[in-house]
Amino acid sequence: MNAKTIGIIGGGQLGRMLAMAASRLNFRTLILEPAPDCPAAQLANGQIVAAYDDEAALTELAARCDVVTYEFENVPVGAARRLAESVAVYPPAFALEVAQDRLTEKRYLNSVGIPTADFRAVDSQADLEAALAEFGGKGVLKTRRMGYDGKGQILFREGDSPEGAFDTLGGAALILESFIAFEREISVIAARDAEGVVVCFDPAENVHRNGILHTSTLPAAIDDHVAAQARDAAERLLAGLDYVGVIGIEFFVGQGGALIANEIAPRVHNSGHWTEAACVISQFEQHIRAVAGLPLGDPARHSDCVMQNLIGDDIHSVEEWARQKDVYIHLYGKTEPRPGRKMGHITRLTGPASR
Amino acid sequence: MNAKTIGIIGGGQLGRMLAMAASRLNFRTLILEPAPDCPAAQLANGQIVAAYDDEAALTELAARCDVVTYEFENVPVGAARRLAESVAVYPPAFALEVAQDRLTEKRYLNSVGIPTADFRAVDSQADLEAALAEFGGKGVLKTRRMGYDGKGQILFREGDSPEGAFDTLGGAALILESFIAFEREISVIAARDAEGVVVCFDPAENVHRNGILHTSTLPAAIDDHVAAQARDAAERLLAGLDYVGVIGIEFFVGQGGALIANEIAPRVHNSGHWTEAACVISQFEQHIRAVAGLPLGDPARHSDCVMQNLIGDDIHSVEEWARQKDVYIHLYGKTEPRPGRKMGHITRLTGPASR
Repeated sequence: MNAKTIGIIGGGQLGRMLAMAASRLNFRTLILEPAPDCPAAQLANGQIVAAYDDEAALTELAARCDVVTYEFENVPVGAARRLAESVAVYPPAFALEVAQDRLTEKRYLNSVGIPTADFRAVDSQADLEAALAEFGGKGVLKTRRMGYDGKGQILFREGDSPEGAFDTLGGAALILESFIAFEREISVIAARDAEGVVVCFDPAENVHRNGILHTSTLPAAIDDHVAAQARDAAERLLAGLDYVGVIGIEFFVGQGGALIANEIAPRVHNSGHWTEAACVISQFEQHIRAVAGLPLGDPARHSDCVMQNLIGDDIHSVEEWARQKDVYIHLYGKTEPRPGRKMGHITRLTGPASR
Repeated sequence: MNAKTIGIIGGGQLGRMLAMAASRLNFRTLILEPAPDCPAAQLANGQIVAAYDDEAALTELAARCDVVTYEFENVPVGAARRLAESVAVYPPAFALEVAQDRLTEKRYLNSVGIPTADFRAVDSQADLEAALAEFGGKGVLKTRRMGYDGKGQILFREGDSPEGAFDTLGGAALILESFIAFEREISVIAARDAEGVVVCFDPAENVHRNGILHTSTLPAAIDDHVAAQARDAAERLLAGLDYVGVIGIEFFVGQGGALIANEIAPRVHNSGHWTEAACVISQFEQHIRAVAGLPLGDPARHSDCVMQNLIGDDIHSVEEWARQKDVYIHLYGKTEPRPGRKMGHITRLTGPASR
């Protein structure tokens, strides 16, 4: 019985939790990551210490693995395509391409019938001013590429001056998104296997602080038809992308339950960490099952819960969390608690699944 | 923030699950085990490949670790004592000494007021015949040391001839235990921290097949006063041993709920694997908390469940288990499914905790 080896591009906490889930199913893992002793490699069977687009490293990864996946959406698309010539790569490189550019992403979502905020491409200060005028002076200006955790964004309220904003965000390709008045934010973690079967975990209700996810609460305070709409969007998106693996889709919920997709992450997602404590099958196991060809697991949740991120110095409160009942702690093996850095998370079970 | 390093003597599945739990709490792990790429080392931060009593290896282990623990009870007592001169070793070497010899174990249990089967030391064929006569011709002859999973045992029913039995079991130190007519077997997984706080998981009801644990079911079909008696025994035992860490205690339950201790394991225990799927804090995390000085976790169980071992060729049915709802799979990274070898286990959640 030779265990399959799963290659994981990226060595952060998501890779770490994927490696842990893989080991429980007897898969071996090999991490490609330039930083030695990264969070993922501490638990994986091996690490190739090299840049994500290092030719020799990619050749080695393909040779040593039965399937390759990734734990962050900024894997160079060229590297994913090159890899895919010699080894199965899930999710497909096309999903990376769609997710890496906010303009491409929104256009794609709309093309499969998933509503988003209205948006305009912004390639100059003049573009910005024209677009702002169209949106009544309000909107969110974002870099099209490489933004995360609220970085690379400027919010315009009515009357704010756009002067110099294009240059402030680097003078590169930007996007202006119309301002969405939302009641709450939710996300759906969905999985699709190679046969096209899609399963979704229950929608989580998310609260962000300073642009970083703070809590995910289950169940979300939404009506069943909103949850159904979110699942339906996930199914259409995953079929369209011919996706294999787990995806995270964030939505705004407006008045009356109108659902607006905010962004997608073609990987396991921070707002799905609760699944590890409140479901039999976690999002990490689900992703490993999908990419390794095992049947997808039932996504039922046995408990209500609240997941909370431990950011920066929050890590020093671990002993207090450890004293509390019903609190599941998961830390990422990072030694330096820098401000804004995700150091771990806790999930508090709040009772048997209520609905 | 320098992470504490926990040394683990032994590289099997118990060490593997301890390493996994340790990593979630930001501890690093270093395994001492002669077999390279053992189940535990696949997930640990490092391995010293050497015999358990290798002097140089023990010196290195003490130097590189903040605390040392073990995952099997046959760690040489001398090695544990030598280690304890230069690094904290939990559970204490005395617990190993008690658990390694069935005669010492039963005498110790009786000394702290915990009933066991009646027993006689057997150091010759004549001893055996005299003891059998005392027990009405019935009893179980066992090696005093190194027996596990039913190996090294001979059962005598009334009328069975003891001829040659002493030599069959190696002609070494043996013990004859009186035959116990029991209604069921249960076990308690208990933990004690360095301040003397003891917490117990709910008793599991165990079924063995061919001397190997087959299933553990929660809740056990026992009255509250039997459960209380088991917890009470655990508290007395752990206090007596000045124990730090998790212990497994197996009991026979006789007619009317009489509780007879069968054996103790000074480590995490197979009949506690269910805690990983049905509790917020698993026995593995509990052990790590105890030996590393974190507060013990609440042992409450959120779900009823049945744990089942996957032995030998059972490993080939993993894909079928993966298709089933509410089944949590945990495999041990072993490549050769030999008969009787523990390859993994599954835990099926059967509903919210019923009592």
